[in-house]
Amino acid sequence: MDVLGYTKLTLNDFIDKYRSFLRQPSISAKNIGVNECALFLRDLMEDLGMYADVVQSRGNPLVYGEVKSQESDKTLLIYSHYDVQPPDPLNEWIYPPFEAKMVDGKIVARGASDAKGNIMAFLKAAEYYVKNEKSTPVNVKFLFEGEEEIGSPNLPDFVEAHKDLLKADAVVCWDGGLHPSNRPAICLGVKGILYVELKCKTAKIDVHSSYAPIVANPAWRLVWALNSIKSPDGRIKIEGWYDDVRPITLEEAKLISELPPEDEEIVKELGIRELLGGVKGVNALRKLICEPTANIAGLKSGYIEEGSKTVLPCEATAKLDFRLIVDQKPDRLLDLLRKHLNAEGFRDIEIVKLGSLLPSKTPPSASIVKASSYAAEEAYKVKPILYPNAAGSGPDYVFTGILYLESVWTGCAPPFSKAHAPNEFNTVDHLIKGVLYATNILREFKVLN
Amino acid sequence: MDVLGYTKLTLNDFIDKYRSFLRQPSISAKNIGVNECALFLRDLMEDLGMYADVVQSRGNPLVYGEVKSQESDKTLLIYSHYDVQPPDPLNEWIYPPFEAKMVDGKIVARGASDAKGNIMAFLKAAEYYVKNEKSTPVNVKFLFEGEEEIGSPNLPDFVEAHKDLLKADAVVCWDGGLHPSNRPAICLGVKGILYVELKCKTAKIDVHSSYAPIVANPAWRLVWALNSIKSPDGRIKIEGWYDDVRPITLEEAKLISELPPEDEEIVKELGIRELLGGVKGVNALRKLICEPTANIAGLKSGYIEEGSKTVLPCEATAKLDFRLIVDQKPDRLLDLLRKHLNAEGFRDIEIVKLGSLLPSKTPPSASIVKASSYAAEEAYKVKPILYPNAAGSGPDYVFTGILYLESVWTGCAPPFSKAHAPNEFNTVDHLIKGVLYATNILREFKVLN
Repeated sequence: MDVLGYTKLTLNDFIDKYRSFLRQPSISAKNIGVNECALFLRDLMEDLGMYADVVQSRGNPLVYGEVKSQESDKTLLIYSHYDVQPPDPLNEWIYPPFEAKMVDGKIVARGASDAKGNIMAFLKAAEYYVKNEKSTPVNVKFLFEGEEEIGSPNLPDFVEAHKDLLKADAVVCWDGGLHPSNRPAICLGVKGILYVELKCKTAKIDVHSSYAPIVANPAWRLVWALNSIKSPDGRIKIEGWYDDVRPITLEEAKLISELPPEDEEIVKELGIRELLGGVKGVNALRKLICEPTANIAGLKSGYIEEGSKTVLPCEATAKLDFRLIVDQKPDRLLDLLRKHLNAEGFRDIEIVKLGSLLPSKTPPSASIVKASSYAAEEAYKVKPILYPNAAGSGPDYVFTGILYLESVWTGCAPPFSKAHAPNEFNTVDHLIKGVLYATNILREFKVLN
Repeated sequence: MDVLGYTKLTLNDFIDKYRSFLRQPSISAKNIGVNECALFLRDLMEDLGMYADVVQSRGNPLVYGEVKSQESDKTLLIYSHYDVQPPDPLNEWIYPPFEAKMVDGKIVARGASDAKGNIMAFLKAAEYYVKNEKSTPVNVKFLFEGEEEIGSPNLPDFVEAHKDLLKADAVVCWDGGLHPSNRPAICLGVKGILYVELKCKTAKIDVHSSYAPIVANPAWRLVWALNSIKSPDGRIKIEGWYDDVRPITLEEAKLISELPPEDEEIVKELGIRELLGGVKGVNALRKLICEPTANIAGLKSGYIEEGSKTVLPCEATAKLDFRLIVDQKPDRLLDLLRKHLNAEGFRDIEIVKLGSLLPSKTPPSASIVKASSYAAEEAYKVKPILYPNAAGSGPDYVFTGILYLESVWTGCAPPFSKAHAPNEFNTVDHLIKGVLYATNILREFKVLN
C-alpha cells in the first residue's frame, strides 16, 4: 500500500488545505470563528469525496461525516474536535497564531496539533481508500465537535439524542499525540474534569487601599479560600474528595511500569530544575496518570498592569480545574467543594461551574485497543505505549457510558507540540505518519472483526 | 474679602483651565503624558501671574513656583502632585477618564480630586492675592511632583539636594479632601508604605494543566506564600512586623475619640453589609488610623479572560501594599518579609520593591496646625476634623524628616470622590470652597507667625 506515495503536488495540496483550516480561528471559549470553521470543515470533507453535514446542537455545531464500506458491515466512529484553545498570551507567539506560518516543514498555529492536524490526517486516510481502493475497509463515521476545549458541555445530550446516527462497533477518539520518545501512544481512557471559577465580590467599586484596615479585601478572601482547598504537599483538603477514586489494578500498574519514563524530557522542555516534589521515572508516571488534581488555571484581582496602584479591589476570581479519576463524579465533587467552602467560613466565595466531564476507561482486551496497537506499530515501526488512562480529559464517557462502546484515545500530534500554549506546532512528517496510522487502524479493525 | 466674588466669566475661565489640566493625562505608573503635564502646569502658573519652572529630577520633573510677599518674610511651602493613578478598569467609567466631562457642576476625570483640583484651588488663591491685594500674606513656594502615585521615589533625593530652594517655615501637603460628613479634614501625619510585587516563575512556558500532578504551579506557590503573610483575622504573621509600631498617645486617642464616625457612610457608599469584622464607630476609626496593613492590590496568573482554559501557568504575581505606622521602616520590613518567605519555604518567590515611604507625624501644637484649623473653620463654617495621621500615605517625612519642618496634610477634594477608582470626580462648589480655604491658610499663617 502506497498511502504515502504522495507526489509533491498532492502533498502540497494536502498541506495547503491543512493550513487554510488552521487559518480559520475556532476559539470556543470566546465564540470566535466557530460556526465559520464548521462550515469550512464540512466543505473540506465534501471536497475529499465524502458525505458531510453541519449538525446543530444546543451549543456549537458538530460536523458529521460518513464513508460507507463495500467490504464490511462493521463501523468505526472517529471522534475529534475542530475548536481550539484561546491563543493567549499573544505576545509570546513567534508568528501570529492564525497565520499558519510554515518554516522548514514545521507549521506554527493554534490548533496545529490539537486537533486540526489529527482531523486532517484521518480525513486524508479515508480519502486514500475511496480514491485508490474504491472502498474503506470498514464503514467510517466522523464526529467532530466544536466545544471540546470548553469541556464538551453539549456532547452528552447530542450523543444521547443521536444514538442511531452514531451506531458503531467501536470508537477512536482521535485527539492525541505521540509520546515524548516519538512512540505512538494509546490511552484506554481519560481523566474526568471539573472546571470552576471561584469569585469573591465585596464592595461595588474598587477603593483606595488606605481603607484596608476596615474594608474586606476579596483577593485575601480568595487566597485564604484557595489555601483551604489544597496544601503545599499537593493533597486536596476537601473532605470526601478521594472517596470514589478506584485504586489502580495490578494490570494497570503493570502497564504503567512498562511506560518509558518522561521526567527528564519534561524537565528539559519546561526549563525547570525538577518535577514537583523531585519525583522521577515510574513514580512520576504513576502520579501523572493516577492522581486527581486541583490546578489553578487563572488568578485575577485588582491592578494587574505594570507598576504600582494602591487599590483595594472589589472582586477577585480564580479559575480552577480538577482532574478526576474513575469513579469520581463531577457533580458530587462540586457539592463537596461548596460544602467545604461553607464549612471553612467562605460562604462569600461564589462557585461558577464552567464545565465537567466524567472519567472513563476501556479494558485492554478490547478489539479496538488491539487494532490501534497493531496499526500504530506498523506505521511508526515501534510498539505503541499503552496508558491505562490519559493524564488529560476528554468526553470519552459519552462513548463508553452512553453508547456502551469500547474506545481508545490516540492520535498523531508531535510530542511537546505546545498544545494550549504559545507556538503550538505540527510538522509535515508527523502529518504524513498520521495518515498512515489512520489507514492502518481502518484496515486492522476490519481484520480483527 | 470677596475671594468668591467670581463673575460668571472668571469662574468659567477657572473651570475651563481646570478641565484642560484634567484632559492632559499624567499617569506616572505608565509614564503617559507626565512631561507634557508638567509643561502644561508651568504655563498655567505663569498664566496666573507667578514665577514657575519645570525642575528635572532623577525621575519625572517637578514643577516649582514662587510668589513673594510684600507683607511678611515668613514662607509657606505648598506641596502637591500633578500625576494621577492609572484609570483602569476603563470599562467602568461612565465618561472617558480624560475627557473631563462636566454635568450639572460635577466634573468626572482621573485626577479631578486627586490632586489636580487641589492644585487649581491653591493656585487660584495665590492669584487672588496677587491680583486683588497686590501681595500674598506670606511668601508662597509651590512644589508639585509627578511621582506621588508611584510612591515619590525621587522626592527624598530632590528635597535633600534643594534644601535652600525649599527653605520655608512650614509645609502644607495639599493633597487631601473633606471628611465624609463634608467637614474639612487635617491630618497631622501620614502612614508610610511599602509596595512590593511578589513573583513566582516556574517553567519557561505555560503548559497543559494535565501536567498538574508533576509540574509546580506558581499560582499555588503564590497563594500559599500570601497565606503565610496574613491570617484571616487580619494579623500580619511576619515575625517582628509590629516591633517598631509606636503606641498611640493619650492625646492621639483623644483626637480619635472626637472624630465623627464614618462607618455608616462607608458601608453605604461601598454597598457592603458591614465593615471588616463588623467594626463600628470609634473602633473603626482607631483601626483605620492606627493599624498597619497588608493589602493585596493585584493578583495575576494564567488565563484571566472569559470562559475556561486548562492551563498550568508558568508565572504568578501579586501586588501588595503595606501601610506603616510610625516608627516602622520600609527597608527593615522588606528585609523581614524576605526572611519570612525564606523561613516558610518560599525562596522561589521573588520580591520586587516598587516603592516605599516612611511614616510621619507633626505635633498638634504646631502653628501650621492651628493656622489650617482656623482657615478651614472660616471657609467651611464648621470645625475641621483633626487626625493624628491619615489612613493613606504621602511623602510627608521629606518635610518633617529632611527639612525638619512642621507639616499638615489637608485639601479640598470632595468626600468619596473615587480617587484611585473609576469615575473620580470633583464639583465646582468644592473647588470654590477650596480656593477660599487656601486663601485663609495663607492669611492665618501670617497672623500666627
